[in-house]
Amino acid sequence: MADIELMKLLSMSSPSKIVLLILDGLGGLPRPETGKTELETARTPNLDSLAVKGICGLVDPVGQGITPGSAPGHAALFGYDPLHSEIGRGVLEAVGIDFDLQSGDIAARGNFCTVDGEGKITNRRAGRISTKRCTELCRLLDGMIINNVTILVRPVREHRFVAVFRGAGLVERVSESDPQQLGVTPLAIEALSPAAAKMASVANWFVDRARKALETHYPANMILLRGFSKRPQFQTMNEIYKLTPASITVYPMYRGLARLVGMEALETGITFEDELKTLRENYDRFDFFFVHVKAIDSAGEDGDFDRKVGVIEEVDRALPALIDLNPDVVVVTGDHSTPALLKGHSWHPVPLLISSPWCRPDGVTGFSESACIHGGLGRFPATEIMPLAMAHALKLNKFGA
Amino acid sequence: MADIELMKLLSMSSPSKIVLLILDGLGGLPRPETGKTELETARTPNLDSLAVKGICGLVDPVGQGITPGSAPGHAALFGYDPLHSEIGRGVLEAVGIDFDLQSGDIAARGNFCTVDGEGKITNRRAGRISTKRCTELCRLLDGMIINNVTILVRPVREHRFVAVFRGAGLVERVSESDPQQLGVTPLAIEALSPAAAKMASVANWFVDRARKALETHYPANMILLRGFSKRPQFQTMNEIYKLTPASITVYPMYRGLARLVGMEALETGITFEDELKTLRENYDRFDFFFVHVKAIDSAGEDGDFDRKVGVIEEVDRALPALIDLNPDVVVVTGDHSTPALLKGHSWHPVPLLISSPWCRPDGVTGFSESACIHGGLGRFPATEIMPLAMAHALKLNKFGA
Repeated sequence: MADIELMKLLSMSSPSKIVLLILDGLGGLPRPETGKTELETARTPNLDSLAVKGICGLVDPVGQGITPGSAPGHAALFGYDPLHSEIGRGVLEAVGIDFDLQSGDIAARGNFCTVDGEGKITNRRAGRISTKRCTELCRLLDGMIINNVTILVRPVREHRFVAVFRGAGLVERVSESDPQQLGVTPLAIEALSPAAAKMASVANWFVDRARKALETHYPANMILLRGFSKRPQFQTMNEIYKLTPASITVYPMYRGLARLVGMEALETGITFEDELKTLRENYDRFDFFFVHVKAIDSAGEDGDFDRKVGVIEEVDRALPALIDLNPDVVVVTGDHSTPALLKGHSWHPVPLLISSPWCRPDGVTGFSESACIHGGLGRFPATEIMPLAMAHALKLNKFGA
Repeated sequence: MADIELMKLLSMSSPSKIVLLILDGLGGLPRPETGKTELETARTPNLDSLAVKGICGLVDPVGQGITPGSAPGHAALFGYDPLHSEIGRGVLEAVGIDFDLQSGDIAARGNFCTVDGEGKITNRRAGRISTKRCTELCRLLDGMIINNVTILVRPVREHRFVAVFRGAGLVERVSESDPQQLGVTPLAIEALSPAAAKMASVANWFVDRARKALETHYPANMILLRGFSKRPQFQTMNEIYKLTPASITVYPMYRGLARLVGMEALETGITFEDELKTLRENYDRFDFFFVHVKAIDSAGEDGDFDRKVGVIEEVDRALPALIDLNPDVVVVTGDHSTPALLKGHSWHPVPLLISSPWCRPDGVTGFSESACIHGGLGRFPATEIMPLAMAHALKLNKFGA
C-alpha cells in the first residue's frame, strides 16, 4: 500500500491544528572560517526552544544525493512521492497567478529578456523590468491565434510571465527555448515526440511574432519559454488527510503548488510578520496551514551567507506570534538545502523539528544541522513528515487489529 | 526482491538458537515531572547489561507516524510486510484458541455485553464475566443452523468468544455490530459488497437468536460481533527461515498470530517466570522462540505509568533465567509503543536490543528510548529485525558471488 493510500485509510478529521512552516532552502554548509552553517550562525532562541521541547531529525526530500527543485521538494513535504508527482514549471506559474488552466491547456513559463543586434542574449531577465511594465508587454502578446490555437499571455512578477496554449492536438513534449546562458541566441523549440510537432511549430511561431512585437521595447525585446506542461491530477489533501488546508505564501509558484493539492491559497503581505498576521486572522477557519518563507532560499541562491543568517534571525524573532496561537503540532523544515557556498539548491538533508505535546524528547538542545543528526526522528524521507504531523495531531487511527 | 524472498534464498538451518522477547507495548513517553519514560524510570540492571554487551536501535513497526495494531505489529516482527499481511480479528481469536479454521470458514470476534430494557448497551463487556460463565453461555449459542450455514461458538476468555460461520457462499465483507460506545443499540450487520449479502443476513439472524437465548442471562444478555475474516495463507517461518519455531504466549491472540506463521504454540502458565520455565523445558526442541509479555501493554492501555514500570522491573528480575540458557541471539523489543500518557498504542518507535557474541557494540550504556536513539543499529523498519537476528545467529549465507 502506498503511503497516500494508508493515509486515506487511517486519517480522521479532528479540531486539532497543524502548522507546517517551510523555511525555503533552510539547510546550509559551514562557512570555512567558523565551521558553522547559516542556521548554526544565526541566533535563534525561539527555534532552539521548540527543538528542546520537540523532536528533531534530518529529512531527504527526494533521496540521498538528489538536489530537489522546488516542486518535488514541496510535493514530498505534502506527502506525495516526488518521483511520481511531476509538475511542470509552466503549470506552476499559471496556477500561481490564479490562471484557470483547462483540460488540454499547455502552459509555459516565460521570461522577458534582452538580445543584442545579432539576437544573442545579453540579459536573461531583461534587467528585471517592473511588474507594471511586464503587464503592459504581456498585453502586446496576448490573444494571438494560429492553427486554431489561442495563446494567452499573463504577467507573473517582474520579468516573468505565463504563456498558455489552448487548442486541440497539443502535446507538451517539446524542448525549451531558454539556453540558460548569455551570448547565444534563444534555441528553437523542438518536438521531443512526433505527437508534439504541432505544439513545437505553434510555439516557434509565437516566439517569432513576439520578437517582432517587442523589437522597440528594449530592454525587454525578446522572450524565453520553458517548462511546457499540462496540469497534473493530484488527490487533494482533503481527500487524503481529511484536512481543511490553507496556504500562506508570498510567491506565486508556492501558491500554485498549494492549490494543486487542494489548499485554499490565502492572500497575504510580503513579510513573515504579514504571513503570521494572515495565519492569526484565518486560524479558526482551517486545521492545516502551510506557511512559506522564501527569502532564506533567495539569500542562499545569491551566495549571501550573512543575509541568509539575517533572514533566519528575522523569522526567529517573529516566531512567538505563531507559537502564541498554540497549534497542536508545529513542523519547521525546508523543501531542500540552499547553502550560500553553493549558490543554489543542494542535496544535503534538511533539518526538521516537530513540536507537539506528544513528542518523545530527544536531548537536542538547539535547532541546527549538526544537532538534528542526533535527533530522535533519525534521518528519513520527507514524504513521512505528513504522517508524523498527522500522528502528533492525533488525527490517525490505528492500523490493523 | 522482497525481504522474505531474500531470506528464503539465504537462510540455512543450524543448531544456533534465537530468542525473540516481545515486551508488548514497550515504548513510552516521559512523565512530565521527571522527563523519563516508563522504561527509563524502571530499574533494569539485566536489560541494561544486555544493551551494553549488545547493540541497540529504534524500530518502526509499520512506518513513521503509524500506530500499529497488535497483528501488523507482530507480522513486522516476524519479518512479514505488515501492509500486506492483513489478519482479521476474528481469525486471530479463532486460531488463538486452537480452533481449526477450515477453508471458507468466516470467524468473528464476539463479546458478551449488557443491554437495558430498550436494547441500548450499558456495558460492552458484560462486566467481564468469568471464563467459566462465558463457556456456559457459548454452549447456549453453539450449533445453530440456517440456510445450510452452521454457527460454531467457542469461549475465549472472560466476556470474549469466537463465532465461526461454516457453509457455502459466505464472503467476509460485512460491517460490525459493535458500535464501540455505550447508550446505543448494537448495529445491524451490513453487506459491504453484493457478494456478502448472505453472510450479513446469516449474521443478523444469529444475533437476533442470541438476544432471545440470552434474555434471562443478565448481565450477559446480548452479543456484539466484529472482525469478520477468513484465514490468510502465509508462508511459514520454517519455509522462509528454515527455523523450527515455537511460541510462548499467555494470551490467545498472540498464540494465534504465532500459529498463522507456522510456530508450534507451547502451553504455558500466566507469569513471565512460567513462560521462562516453558522456554527451559522446551529449549532443546526448537531453534527459535517467540516469548510474549502482555502485561506491559495492559498497564500502558490502562494509563498506569507506575504499573507499567513495575511490570518492566518484574521482567528484568526474571531475565537471568533466560540469559542462563545462553541463546546465541537474544532480541528484546516491542510490537509497538503504548505510552501510559496516551492510554493506548502509539506511533512512537520502539526500543530494540540485540545481544549475541557477534554484535558490534555501540557505546549504549542502558536500555531506554533515549539511549536507543544513539544505538549502532540506527532507526529502521521492524521487518528487518528477523534478518538481523538470523545474521547474528550465523544462519544466513552470503548474498552473491
